[in-house]
This record gives sequence, structure tokens and C-alpha cells, in this order.
Amino acid sequence: MEKVQSYIESNKARFLEELFDLIRIPSISSIADHKPDMQKAAEYWRDTILKAGADKAEIFQTPGNPVVYGEKIIDPKLPTVLVYAHYDVMPVDPLNLWTSPPFEPQVRDGKIYARGADDDKGQGFIHAKAFEAMVQSGSLPCNVKFMIEGEEEIGSPNLGKFCEEHKAMLDADVILVSDTSMIAKDIPSITTGLRGLSYVEVEVTGPSHDLHSGLFGGAVANPANILAKMIASLHDENNRITIPGFYDDVEIVSKEERAEMAKAPFNLEEYKKAIKIDEVWGEEGYSTSERVGIRPTLDVNGIWSGYTGEGAKTVLPSKAYAKISMRLVPHQDNHKITELFTKHFKAIAPPYVKVEVKALHGGQGYVSPTDTPAYQAASKAYQETFGKKPVPVRSGGSIPIISTFEQILGKKTILMGFGLESDAIHSPNENFPVDVFYKGIQTIPYFYKYYAELAK
Amino acid sequence: MEKVQSYIESNKARFLEELFDLIRIPSISSIADHKPDMQKAAEYWRDTILKAGADKAEIFQTPGNPVVYGEKIIDPKLPTVLVYAHYDVMPVDPLNLWTSPPFEPQVRDGKIYARGADDDKGQGFIHAKAFEAMVQSGSLPCNVKFMIEGEEEIGSPNLGKFCEEHKAMLDADVILVSDTSMIAKDIPSITTGLRGLSYVEVEVTGPSHDLHSGLFGGAVANPANILAKMIASLHDENNRITIPGFYDDVEIVSKEERAEMAKAPFNLEEYKKAIKIDEVWGEEGYSTSERVGIRPTLDVNGIWSGYTGEGAKTVLPSKAYAKISMRLVPHQDNHKITELFTKHFKAIAPPYVKVEVKALHGGQGYVSPTDTPAYQAASKAYQETFGKKPVPVRSGGSIPIISTFEQILGKKTILMGFGLESDAIHSPNENFPVDVFYKGIQTIPYFYKYYAELAK
Repeated sequence: MEKVQSYIESNKARFLEELFDLIRIPSISSIADHKPDMQKAAEYWRDTILKAGADKAEIFQTPGNPVVYGEKIIDPKLPTVLVYAHYDVMPVDPLNLWTSPPFEPQVRDGKIYARGADDDKGQGFIHAKAFEAMVQSGSLPCNVKFMIEGEEEIGSPNLGKFCEEHKAMLDADVILVSDTSMIAKDIPSITTGLRGLSYVEVEVTGPSHDLHSGLFGGAVANPANILAKMIASLHDENNRITIPGFYDDVEIVSKEERAEMAKAPFNLEEYKKAIKIDEVWGEEGYSTSERVGIRPTLDVNGIWSGYTGEGAKTVLPSKAYAKISMRLVPHQDNHKITELFTKHFKAIAPPYVKVEVKALHGGQGYVSPTDTPAYQAASKAYQETFGKKPVPVRSGGSIPIISTFEQILGKKTILMGFGLESDAIHSPNENFPVDVFYKGIQTIPYFYKYYAELAK
Repeated sequence: MEKVQSYIESNKARFLEELFDLIRIPSISSIADHKPDMQKAAEYWRDTILKAGADKAEIFQTPGNPVVYGEKIIDPKLPTVLVYAHYDVMPVDPLNLWTSPPFEPQVRDGKIYARGADDDKGQGFIHAKAFEAMVQSGSLPCNVKFMIEGEEEIGSPNLGKFCEEHKAMLDADVILVSDTSMIAKDIPSITTGLRGLSYVEVEVTGPSHDLHSGLFGGAVANPANILAKMIASLHDENNRITIPGFYDDVEIVSKEERAEMAKAPFNLEEYKKAIKIDEVWGEEGYSTSERVGIRPTLDVNGIWSGYTGEGAKTVLPSKAYAKISMRLVPHQDNHKITELFTKHFKAIAPPYVKVEVKALHGGQGYVSPTDTPAYQAASKAYQETFGKKPVPVRSGGSIPIISTFEQILGKKTILMGFGLESDAIHSPNENFPVDVFYKGIQTIPYFYKYYAELAK
């Protein structure tokens, strides 16, 4: 292990430069114009894996963005780790809120500022560099496979099929992913649950074209007002979601489990201060941690209608739109929830308007056990570098592909996240502390070491 | 009158070309970038009035956009008509819904398609050309003054002061305006009432920055959801506005008056068909015409928050905005209503968010009598060219400056509108039938003739 760590120590500056080159490729998967950047980012990952010392690495085209696959098999009898990461990133708007351009990484106060700095270029690259360090220092203790995709931020629409078609190639003992967060820089944690996701776009149409709000206002239903009313009705006075059947399959978490979870460190005052709110909000009867950890939720992610420019325009809009997402908990099926939403939303539409619902994106939730060799190895690895036993936590986020892996490849995933709440992923000024990036690279070889021992 | 009409007949093509040149100036008053276009449009109007034969015409600068003033005094003892129009236009977005570019006028199926084709370049220019025809054919029967402003679409913020400062210069017996609509091409009408306006922009702030909707959704109030709830609460189950005190000053229209108004031709099925809606909407207990004519209303003119681009972004937005306007009826004071709205909207804000309300624009309503020389002259003029007695109607629209004229100049306005519902003013593909443009020019000299006789 000394050789690995000293290799990492002597190559730190180069690792950071190489991460910057990956970040500079604006690989936004939800915007069609960035298609060429997806190929570039895939090529960069392929070359990175090859140079690190893989036996092979290649790019597989899909109906969407390419998947990079690479492997190093040192002994078929040894355990195999399949590393998953994604090279695509979220859109960057509102651009004016970024202090430095999102695709020109800049280090300020010890943090890398850029889109993808954490999610998931920074966290993903940790594995490329840890792999390089183990190979180059002659201390790789097991087989490694890499599967790096470019559609995670749009719900991995093609990766399920890719897994089905390459089941043998992807065969492994465990899947290793860094795309989640720790509780804090000094409180490492392992994510043992993820929420599922149902993401829809709704379109409410009133009159066939925009009208003058003076000549028609008050006599013709305004789709923006109607949409507001429809959205408002999706939560009741206890902030519970009103879609019939929505809670039917929700996992009931026992009092004992809830008591156990409540022990995780959480400071409500600091939480409110960090995002500058006076009061938290959420479903009656649950704590803030429970609201994101074990309860399903519904949020408007975007809404738009009518005139949104400077000044006053007296228009009665023809159409109003919203992007609405629901985070789901174990046992809730995202397809069923999307159907329930669609049915309900159309049912509550008044006769003055027409309503369309488009499913944009979705995935199942995931729960991971803590009594596996992988969990134990990860726990020990964090203890080596952070000096503390990591806390198991249920995350509010979704990585839909993780449950797909379980279904198709039949394997559990170990979620060794190095993100921080302050990393502002999906937001302007996304960032990732340089020292956490290095600490991640130092931690991963310990995981391999312990996993090779425990999984034998 | 023969000489005037034959002058008009021989100059029709040029009149249209000259209108097109005015339309080509993109004088959008609500967008600061168009500032130079406002000066250009003012200069075009000044030159038009001068060339038509005015004694003088000049541009007055204001803290906002310039005002054009011109006059021809043939005999101080004769009645004086003050023509008011505006050279500014509404914004053009969404641009993709225009069949031809908004500032490149195009005639299709006998209609001029362009922003401002009707409102108010087309209708305003009718007066310039009618004036030219009367002067050039030696048949102007009274004195004429022109006041053409460039801020009508943003609420005429500087015209009140301009009127106060130039009271003597603007002195007239009646104010003549073409900025309203007729019931149909074959049913002329005179607008005898206009609604007042209170236009506000609201800003709802939740967390200090955009958050990941998975990690925070359900535990932090989403300002887009909250804004939807707040907007939804502004109407009750009878579609009445819930702002306390909102209806306090509303003019009570007697049963008899309502019965009289109900005689105006209106076909509900055609109305619904024209804008492709299945059902109308509005305050319980009132007809569609009453809802826009005698009742105050509240509409969302624009709403925006979060991610509104292509695809799915799982963001919990920091801010949500809406532009909301209220149309007011006689006796409702727009300042009072803006205050009531602001107070109420802040009062209903839950503790999870911060709310700001900004007054953008406003004006008082207006009612015009039908027993005046001006109304009688207008009525006779329409009969000459349309062959029908015009119907008096209360419009749902607002021209806030009309009530200001009454307050400051002490004069009533006669609203001789030539617009049509199908003109799509304020919307994409605004248009104005070429024959209506010409018919307007032919009608106005009759108004002057009868007014000069009746007002003596």
C-alpha cells in the first residue's frame, strides 16, 4: 500500500490537470447541441483507462451517447470490481450566477469550481487515477472493469439494454460507484439507499393563441392560473401528495429503524443557515432527514408561461408548462407512479383547458445491505484515510441505473461517495474540494485491498 | 367631402407604403435596447404630420420616450380636436410563432401582418392620413392638434406630467383616439368604457441558491410550488378574486343596464370556436361580455422558475416569479388595488419563503357618455362608411392615459376604434385588414365634418 500511496503523492498535480481536461469538455447530455462533446468525453475516458494500464478499453455506440468499457483481468480466479461512472453533466443555466465559466475549471479557496467538478467527473476520475496508481505501482489486488456512460443525467435510457447485451463482459462480484455524498468532510458516510424518480413535463393549453388579457381576461381560462391551481392541489394541507394510490407501495420504516436513523448527526439550525431559509417545510409527522430519506416527494423543477421578459406585457397566454419530478422510495415502481400522475393530472384538468403529460425520465429506488464484504471493505477503507467509521445513510437523490444493475446484472452496488452538500451539484458554482479529490484517490486502493481479502 | 374621398382614393397605395415604413421601426417600449427606435418612430411621426400640412410639429423629450406634438389652427373660434395615438408597440416573443418577421410588414389575404399593424401604428396612422386628405383637399372643417406618445404599452408613465406642463398648448374640445376594437368588420362600435389596470411582478424566494431536488426536495419549500399555491388562492371556487377589499369600490351596474348591454350581438359558440376552447371560464353569475365589460379580473401574464430548457433537470429552484395584472372597473382606484394586492400577497406568504411585490404599471378605468356632440358625430361618421349605426360597448381593455386626460385636461375622449378581435394585438401574427385601414381613413373626415357642425 505504501507504493500506491507514494505513487499518488508524486502524481497529484498531473491528476488534477487531467481532470481539468475532462471537465473542459462541455458534455451536457440533455442538450442536443452537445452531441459531439459526448463522443469527445467518451474518447477522453477510453484513453485515460488505456494509459492507466488496462488490458483494453473501447467505445460502444448506443442509440444515445456512447458507453466506454475497459478492463484489466489479472487472474480470473480473483474477485472482480466493476466501476461505474458517468461523463455527462447537467445543464449550466442560469449562467449569470456562475462566478467563473462552468467549463473553465478554476481553483479558489482549495475548491475546483466547474460543472462536473463533483458530479460525476471529479468523483468518477478518482477511480481512473486510483486504478492507475494500483497498476503502475504493481499493487492491483483484483480484476477491474470500467463502464462509463454518458446519459446518467437524463435517466440512462440506453444503459439497461447495454447491460443486457453485454452481461458476460460486465460480469463482476460487485459494482463500485462514487456519485453520492458524505455527511460532511470529517464525517464519511456510505449511501445505503437511493430514491427512485418519476420526471414528467406537463403542458396546459387554454386558447389556441396568446390573447390580450384585457379583452379576454376574466372570460377565458388562463392556463397559467389553471396550472398554478392544478399544481397547488398536488399537496394537501399536511404537505402529503394527493395523487390517488401514490403512497400505496411505500416502504413502511419501523419505529426502531427510524430511531436508529435519527442518530445520524444533523443540525437543523446549520441546515437552515446554509441555504438561508427561516423554516423547513415538508410532510407532517416526519423529520427533515426522514423527508428526504424514507418519504416520497413531489417538486416543480421548472415552470413557464406567457411573458417573462422585461417590463409589462398584458398577455393571456395560450400555454403553460411545468417540469415536475417525484422522488420515490423502495417498493414504489416509477412506471406505475408516472401512470398514476398522468391519470390524476388529466382527471383534475378543468374543461376549460387541454392537458398533456410527457414522461421525461425515471428510475427505481435502491436499498443496499450493510453486511456484505463490499460494505465492510468500504467501511475499513474510509477508516484508513478519514480516521472514522463511515455512517450508513439513506440519500434523497436518485441514481436510477443502480437498481437496473441489480435487476439485469444481478449484482449489488457499493456507493462510496465523496461529495459534499456544499458542492452545489446541479447548481451554479458546482465545486469539489481539491483535497477531497486526492483523499478519494487515496481511499479507493484500500477498498480494493480489503475487498480482495474479504470477498475471497 | 367628395374631394377628400377622391384624394384618399388616389393616394391609397402611398398611404400603405408610408404605414409600412413606420411599422419597420421596431419601437418596443418595454425593452431598453430599443431606445434609439423610439426616437426614430417619433421623428417619422413628426415628419408625417408636417408633410400632411400642419402649421408645426415638434418632438418633446421626456424622462422616457419622446412625445410628438403638432397642430393646424385654421380658426381659433372653430372647435379643436386633439388626436392622441402611440408609436410604441408590444414585445414580439414568442418569435417562432410569427409566420413572417414582426417588423417586416407583409400583406397576406388582404391583411397587413406585423407588430403594430393595428395597435397602434395602423390605427394611429389613419388619423395622419385623414388629416392629410382634409388639408390637401382644402376641406379641414376645424382645428386639429396631434399628441403622439411612445410609452402607451408601458402605462404612459411620463404623459401625465407632459399634459400638466402643456395644458394650454393641448387645449381642445374633444380628444379623438383610435386604439380600440369594433364588434366585427360589419358591426361598428364605439367604446364607452375601459377597464383600469394594476400590473405587478412578484418574486418568491425559497433557499438562497438552486438546490438538488433529490437531496433537498420534500424537506425545503419549493418556491415554484409555493407560488402556484399562492396564485391558486387568489380566486375562490366561484372564480371571484379573494383579495380583501378588492370589490369594495366596484361600480354596481343596474339590472336594466345589464339587460341593455346583453342586446349587443354576441355568439358564444363562434367566440369559443375562434380561440379553440371547449368552455368559457369566469366569475359566477356574469355573462362572458359582462366578465370583460363590467367586472374586474386577475390574470397571470407570465410565470417562470427553475429549469425551462430541453430535457430533465432535477433542480429545486431558489426563486419563482410571476407577472400578474388586474383589470379594474370604474371607481376602483388602481393605486389602492396595487396596495391591497401587495398587502394580501405578502400576508399569504408562508414562513418558508420571502416575497417581494413590484408595481410595474397601472391606470384608472374610464366611462364615456353617449349624449355628447363627439359621440353623435362619431356615430354618424360610421353610418356614412359602414352603413350601420355603431353599438356602444364597454371594453375589457385598458388605456390608462384616457382617464388621465380627463383628470388633467378636463376633456372627454371619443374612442373611434377600427380594430378587430382577429387582429391578434399583443400576440404573434398581429394583423390589420388593408380595407379596414382605408375605411378608417375614409370615416375620420366625416367625424370632423359632423363634429364641427354639432360642437359649434
